[in-house]
Amino acid sequence: MSFHFEYPRTIAARRPGEFKPAAPKFHVRWQAPVTTIVSDYIAVQRQASDMAAERAFFQRMRRAFDSAYGPDSFEEMRQTDEAGMVNSIVVAYWTDIVRYALWKHVDSFNAWFRSTEREQEAVGYWRETLTVPYDRMETIFSEPYYHAGLARTRQAALEPMYTAGYFGAMRDRLPISAIDPLNSPYGETTPEGNYAGGPVRRVRVDVPPNVVSIRSGQVWQKAEGEQLDDYYQNLQPKLETGMAYLKEHPETTGYLSLRAIVHLDKDGQELRETSKHGYFLALAQLERWAAEHKSHLDIFKHALAMRRKYGADRQVVTWHEVFVLGTTPSLEYINCHPGTGLLRFANVWGNPPPSN
Amino acid sequence: MSFHFEYPRTIAARRPGEFKPAAPKFHVRWQAPVTTIVSDYIAVQRQASDMAAERAFFQRMRRAFDSAYGPDSFEEMRQTDEAGMVNSIVVAYWTDIVRYALWKHVDSFNAWFRSTEREQEAVGYWRETLTVPYDRMETIFSEPYYHAGLARTRQAALEPMYTAGYFGAMRDRLPISAIDPLNSPYGETTPEGNYAGGPVRRVRVDVPPNVVSIRSGQVWQKAEGEQLDDYYQNLQPKLETGMAYLKEHPETTGYLSLRAIVHLDKDGQELRETSKHGYFLALAQLERWAAEHKSHLDIFKHALAMRRKYGADRQVVTWHEVFVLGTTPSLEYINCHPGTGLLRFANVWGNPPPSN
Repeated sequence: MSFHFEYPRTIAARRPGEFKPAAPKFHVRWQAPVTTIVSDYIAVQRQASDMAAERAFFQRMRRAFDSAYGPDSFEEMRQTDEAGMVNSIVVAYWTDIVRYALWKHVDSFNAWFRSTEREQEAVGYWRETLTVPYDRMETIFSEPYYHAGLARTRQAALEPMYTAGYFGAMRDRLPISAIDPLNSPYGETTPEGNYAGGPVRRVRVDVPPNVVSIRSGQVWQKAEGEQLDDYYQNLQPKLETGMAYLKEHPETTGYLSLRAIVHLDKDGQELRETSKHGYFLALAQLERWAAEHKSHLDIFKHALAMRRKYGADRQVVTWHEVFVLGTTPSLEYINCHPGTGLLRFANVWGNPPPSN
Repeated sequence: MSFHFEYPRTIAARRPGEFKPAAPKFHVRWQAPVTTIVSDYIAVQRQASDMAAERAFFQRMRRAFDSAYGPDSFEEMRQTDEAGMVNSIVVAYWTDIVRYALWKHVDSFNAWFRSTEREQEAVGYWRETLTVPYDRMETIFSEPYYHAGLARTRQAALEPMYTAGYFGAMRDRLPISAIDPLNSPYGETTPEGNYAGGPVRRVRVDVPPNVVSIRSGQVWQKAEGEQLDDYYQNLQPKLETGMAYLKEHPETTGYLSLRAIVHLDKDGQELRETSKHGYFLALAQLERWAAEHKSHLDIFKHALAMRRKYGADRQVVTWHEVFVLGTTPSLEYINCHPGTGLLRFANVWGNPPPSN
């Protein structure tokens, strides 16, 4: 039997009455207890033309991960950002914080990353390490056959689940939501991130509790014919409209950062697979957008319509993993432009003490 | 009904068979859900003669804590360390990480503490912020009538419990121990902390997962006659012998740091109340000392003998709170001598990146 636990509720579930969707969705469950996971995003930021920097970086990361204490799984990806820079990203997952600590302790990559030599390079680097207790994460996959993100970790399986198909299901899937409203200390007032760079080339940003990390994926590798056409003509534009709305309305959506990421194969070729990785101030704001704004309702209705139309023959997979961060994320930027990730919040969250 | 949860066990409890102690001990339970607590140790390090530094510091902390987002409770204490310096310490507790974040955000104390001006002062400062999920903490009190530490937080009560009186009970009281062995990434090899100071006057130390924080308290405020004599003639020397042994054998006990702390009243007078606050590499090492070494067995047997002799008339209270730290402690030292707290491990755990 797979591992899971829930708290006795002191906060009502959002599920309306006895609502149950006609068909299941799927979520990650592990065959052994998992208390905390680590999702480590590490990237080189480079000129679009500098493919050599990407190749060298991915080779370095593959060597670093090829260790007894290396990650359960990792993925190589690419993102062109608003400043026109390309971020070549690996995201690696560990389901054991002790193994992660061992990896950081023994693998020379971590000393390399910390070295002041990085600050002298012509490229930038960043690292967003998310450490997430079990009760602060939830996943959903539209189909049981495609594994991405946490679903690729050791002893993970996709199991059917019915906490889906209504507004608030995302919150209901987070075990901690039974006893914690997951509010931001900022309420719903997104602070102004206007750090514009400074003399220090390596900057660490400490975000407040309950910031949401959402990685939302789309896979159309197997789609063909009218399902492929539908992806390009309907789903993809709707997703882009939704992302644009979130970015343009941070005061209501809690938008902090949002990356449109393309997944790569082993040779660096782009797959027909993407994910949007975003940070938001609070779950409540993301929920309001999802429940009320046309740009999400269009995505939601489209998913329902495709489900009705194709049933189990649906060739496009969508999934996400949501982490409501506690106090442990470690975000670090070296030589990056100030629009990178959460770096522009260095003016409000960026002043932990220097080290020896 | 008070809040509590347990995991379905995948690791056997240590309780031998159906063992149940004849009388209960007591532990902290809350009347509302508590997901994570913050225990924030903040101190000024000064010459013994410099009482003005202590008074100014405690006044500053009282003002800072007198806020809508201030701690549930705090205690003022004093410790003379191995270098002969006096550390005037406040420990403050929050049972809500959002309220703690608000306090850090709004109260000017935190900007004051971060200011580079602190590095120019004639005194030292340190801060050890422990952020602990519910499943990684446990408490035990010998009597139900005296509250200290977490027992003073909002909606906390001392409730009877029977997970006590056998070796391994400490581990069994930690909910996470049901599914996690709580090993150190260092195994049982305590790294050598030999940082001897350096040019940077503010140093941050990041400890590995599963380091144990134990605050073990003794209260003889109400003791008189033979119970008072027994405290000074028996319990106190046994405690000192035990502490000395732990310190002198770090390679087997996992000892990292141990402070003998005296509690103070509002006027700075010493109470008949102490606590020993220690950090150890791993729970297993502390357990082995407790189960096998004469210096702990003497303390343990003495407690049992006093219980038999005085029953409910026991006038000396002992208690502890144990946190098995995950990845979130934040330890910072400004102008402190290298023997302070965990500062001597700055050579192995002390190099997170500097900030802007």
